[in-house]
Amino acid sequence: MTRDQQLAQQARLVGLDLTETLKIGGRYSPVLRHGGQVHVSGQVPRIGDRVVVTGRAGGAVSLAQAQQAARICAVRALVLLQQGAHTLDAVSTLLRMNVFVQCEASFTQLSEVADAASDLVVAVLGDAGRHVRTSIGVYQLPKDATVELDLLAAVAQAPSAVDSSI
Amino acid sequence: MTRDQQLAQQARLVGLDLTETLKIGGRYSPVLRHGGQVHVSGQVPRIGDRVVVTGRAGGAVSLAQAQQAARICAVRALVLLQQGAHTLDAVSTLLRMNVFVQCEASFTQLSEVADAASDLVVAVLGDAGRHVRTSIGVYQLPKDATVELDLLAAVAQAPSAVDSSI
Amino acid sequence: MTRDQQLAQQARLVGLDLTETLKIGGRYSPVLRHGGQVHVSGQVPRIGDRVVVTGRAGGAVSLAQAQQAARICAVRALVLLQQGAHTLDAVSTLLRMNVFVQCEASFTQLSEVADAASDLVVAVLGDAGRHVRTSIGVYQLPKDATVELDLLAAVAQAPSAVDSSI
Repeated sequence: MTRDQQLAQQARLVGLDLTETLKIGGRYSPVLRHGGQVHVSGQVPRIGDRVVVTGRAGGAVSLAQAQQAARICAVRALVLLQQGAHTLDAVSTLLRMNVFVQCEASFTQLSEVADAASDLVVAVLGDAGRHVRTSIGVYQLPKDATVELDLLAAVAQAPSAVDSSI
Repeated sequence: MTRDQQLAQQARLVGLDLTETLKIGGRYSPVLRHGGQVHVSGQVPRIGDRVVVTGRAGGAVSLAQAQQAARICAVRALVLLQQGAHTLDAVSTLLRMNVFVQCEASFTQLSEVADAASDLVVAVLGDAGRHVRTSIGVYQLPKDATVELDLLAAVAQAPSAVDSSI
Repeated sequence: MTRDQQLAQQARLVGLDLTETLKIGGRYSPVLRHGGQVHVSGQVPRIGDRVVVTGRAGGAVSLAQAQQAARICAVRALVLLQQGAHTLDAVSTLLRMNVFVQCEASFTQLSEVADAASDLVVAVLGDAGRHVRTSIGVYQLPKDATVELDLLAAVAQAPSAVDSSI
């Protein structure tokens, strides 16, 4: 399977319909490509119109549910990366993932939540999925989402589209 | 109006005096230019010596007040970007904005706060103001600030000043 | 002293044994080099198997203890930067440091905690240690750590190892 096919499979597993345009909740760009890098905005576990995992990890939300939220965020971020890079085959390295988890005061399994996202991106991108990561527990997230995740990736530059600022 | 004039106008609207040097609260650089990118440190809504919007959004601080805090942060960040790029006309794309909002446990309108900053940078920079964004709700911020905001921007490189590390 | 020797001295001061491999708590890369930049994952104040400063700054953890936590995080991040760059002499500019502090609701001395890390990186790297910074107070961190810190640095590229994506 190509990486794009792998992503389609992961999207089916989390219930995300790739034929719909991803809804974005604010006045900014979901993804930007510049100078051999693709920047992806923070993604919450939204499917269609609805954020499907809300509330605090370690409270109403179990570790397993928070991990599923992280997977949905990761799929959404990869779909946007695919749009920014035209195809995931153009990704040379994922570079960085930041994972923010809305949690109870005593919930410390933030790496365990983020690992679900890391495993998914490596399943889709293989070696090119390697990334550095920062995982933190936050007080709130947009629309009461349990997880938010953003990405920075390096992409191969088409010879005819070399960015003038580099 | 040029972008630099637009920024001067926005600074007047939020009450920031551009003839003063911006005070920075720590031992680091407010702005760094390297390799065609300008990195801007996290800005709080400080005017002169005082952080003018403090406390938790959704509690003592209304949504409208938090949005005004976001605008002040955005103006300060653009002033620093202007210093790093010499003129805002050199900015090719804003790339990324991170917005951190000190909030009550149940305050979920983080995108709505951040939109005030996004609208302001687009008003100043036009098309070059497009950016990806991550907005999160945090537990505290330096000096009890309601909002902190940082930026990464791409700038055109002068032919005579190509960075040796690229 | 070279920068690498300075780092060895700082590691001794915080009690970190550089002959051990740094333990990483998740399925991701501790450090990645790409396109003239080195990205370092979020570091907690772990020494050997144990996170040595845990709990909330402003509560069970004093400002001085949180600052010591920040120093340990900074040493770990510099060790990883050294691995990514082969030697700290290859670092041209540190660029960015993000500092996340687990704190009590009313603890606002986040810049003061982060200053301990900023001072340390400047002590090791000299002028090349200059960086922009964002410091925020968060609700939890992996393994109840008091501080987490990540880095982005610019490095000189060896002529024989120019990255193909740039």
